[in-house]
Amino acid sequence: MKIILDAMGGDNAPLAIVKGAVQAARSQDDEIVLVGPKQELTEILESVGTSGLVGKISIFPASQVISNDEAPVKAVKTKTDSSVVVGANIVRDGLGDVLLSAGSTGALLAAGFMVIGRLKGISRPAICSIYPILGKQPSLLADAGANSDCKPANLLDFAFMGSAYMEKVLGRENPTVGLVNIGTESKKGNALAQKSYELLEKSGLNFIGNVEARDIPRGVCDVIVADGFTGNVILKLTEGMGIGTLRYLQSNLEAEGAMKALGSLKKEFDYSEYGGAPILGLAKPVMKMHGSSDEKSVASAIRVAADFARGGVIEKISGVAEK
Amino acid sequence: MKIILDAMGGDNAPLAIVKGAVQAARSQDDEIVLVGPKQELTEILESVGTSGLVGKISIFPASQVISNDEAPVKAVKTKTDSSVVVGANIVRDGLGDVLLSAGSTGALLAAGFMVIGRLKGISRPAICSIYPILGKQPSLLADAGANSDCKPANLLDFAFMGSAYMEKVLGRENPTVGLVNIGTESKKGNALAQKSYELLEKSGLNFIGNVEARDIPRGVCDVIVADGFTGNVILKLTEGMGIGTLRYLQSNLEAEGAMKALGSLKKEFDYSEYGGAPILGLAKPVMKMHGSSDEKSVASAIRVAADFARGGVIEKISGVAEK
Repeated sequence: MKIILDAMGGDNAPLAIVKGAVQAARSQDDEIVLVGPKQELTEILESVGTSGLVGKISIFPASQVISNDEAPVKAVKTKTDSSVVVGANIVRDGLGDVLLSAGSTGALLAAGFMVIGRLKGISRPAICSIYPILGKQPSLLADAGANSDCKPANLLDFAFMGSAYMEKVLGRENPTVGLVNIGTESKKGNALAQKSYELLEKSGLNFIGNVEARDIPRGVCDVIVADGFTGNVILKLTEGMGIGTLRYLQSNLEAEGAMKALGSLKKEFDYSEYGGAPILGLAKPVMKMHGSSDEKSVASAIRVAADFARGGVIEKISGVAEK
Repeated sequence: MKIILDAMGGDNAPLAIVKGAVQAARSQDDEIVLVGPKQELTEILESVGTSGLVGKISIFPASQVISNDEAPVKAVKTKTDSSVVVGANIVRDGLGDVLLSAGSTGALLAAGFMVIGRLKGISRPAICSIYPILGKQPSLLADAGANSDCKPANLLDFAFMGSAYMEKVLGRENPTVGLVNIGTESKKGNALAQKSYELLEKSGLNFIGNVEARDIPRGVCDVIVADGFTGNVILKLTEGMGIGTLRYLQSNLEAEGAMKALGSLKKEFDYSEYGGAPILGLAKPVMKMHGSSDEKSVASAIRVAADFARGGVIEKISGVAEK
């Protein structure tokens, strides 16, 4: 696979991105294209060292960068030589298999939407975030924040897309789908949840019904379906609870064995282990990394991005959506 | 204060409720009225022992019970001699100062709405739940689940009511109010959040702006405002994360000091320490206890209910709402 990597996006760009790319290039067979200012990226590559990586890592020039502070749609329209827009062009034109960025989520979504375009039959692309489960395989949260106001048909799409990703990329057979709600009975919740329940029930997916938020952390289903507002609240609250609990215990625990257990807990909460979050519903694979991604998480995201690109996810979603 | 206690509501009723009432009666000056079947409650009181409690604890007869499985509105309409409806009648008629129940939340809300009535000027009563913060004073979450679909004016009411409760009952001066949103900028989030932001900004409350879910567990504001769907997801996810993390650590920690720290963490997460959740927006004080309340949490809720009744919360809300 040919991975198109936005070298300029993220808090630690471009250094951590380039280092992560080099690390990935040494451990997997895919080709990585760094998108960004040629001179700057060349110098970093030289200082990091790329011996033995001929043909596996290259640079595609882009002179501009879109920051987190910029209005995404306007920035994508005007900064046509920015790393994320150039990367999106490459993938749209079939010269790369997947676009990966740790930069502004809004800009990546806008570039995905405006440059690569939606998949036919999909109303709204969604950010699908890996949701870590203590001691178990992770779930997938769809949508994790791309769509604040949703209709029931959007949630149905999220469920289809999330299922396809879990099956094709994470190898989960016949993945279970749960709808986030404030009670388990079918008539519970707000109007959106009630109508989405009806659609999911008839979807042919492995729908297990409503799931309450208290059951999400124990991995009650493979795909957690929610509108992007609720999904984002779930993702960030989980992060905040994890961090808060760790800090509290660290300042209240002294025993050595305890610190070891905390270390393993921290690792369980470590989203970076799972690479990036796929943006599903676009015509080509696009993946978002955490803004604070470091070398290790970039390398890990590149591995997952390659799996995403070769997994047939888009084809699967497309096959269902066009029916 | 005269506390009207639904003796038949909750998983451990009536035994834990009566025991909690006796415990509270021994430690505070308020009068407690147990509502339920006279014969059954008398026998429990005799077996528990009430020496020295003359005039502090009494029984008001009610022959029926509403369970969690019943449709709340229908049950309240038809079971006119149920403990929760009889209790609501007592409080409405001014023969008691506050109604406290661990039974069906829906039935308590329906009884509050239909028997006691709304406060003039308040669109929707809300369940306001104490939200525990590790190592700090708790926040208050409004709404925690009474209203699944909300309008901006509802959220404004929740903010007013929550602030009044925090000030009058928990003694928090000029409490800070935060709006749950998926970004901190004023234009972030769904349509509800954006419009609610505008109302809160002009409210005269101590509004600190949007709060992201990741910052809630560190106690970023006194009153956390959200629609009831989002609020309930927050409350239950917090519970699930707390339980999940504790279980994980318990099975991964061996050192003795660690178990002690976990014990203190468990205590921090223990909602029962904070008594019940006030239902604000009704013409009289009504408070919900957790369904699984035990003796200790009942006693603690009775103490808080008395504070609620004597605190002038209703007057404060009423003064603002009628303007």
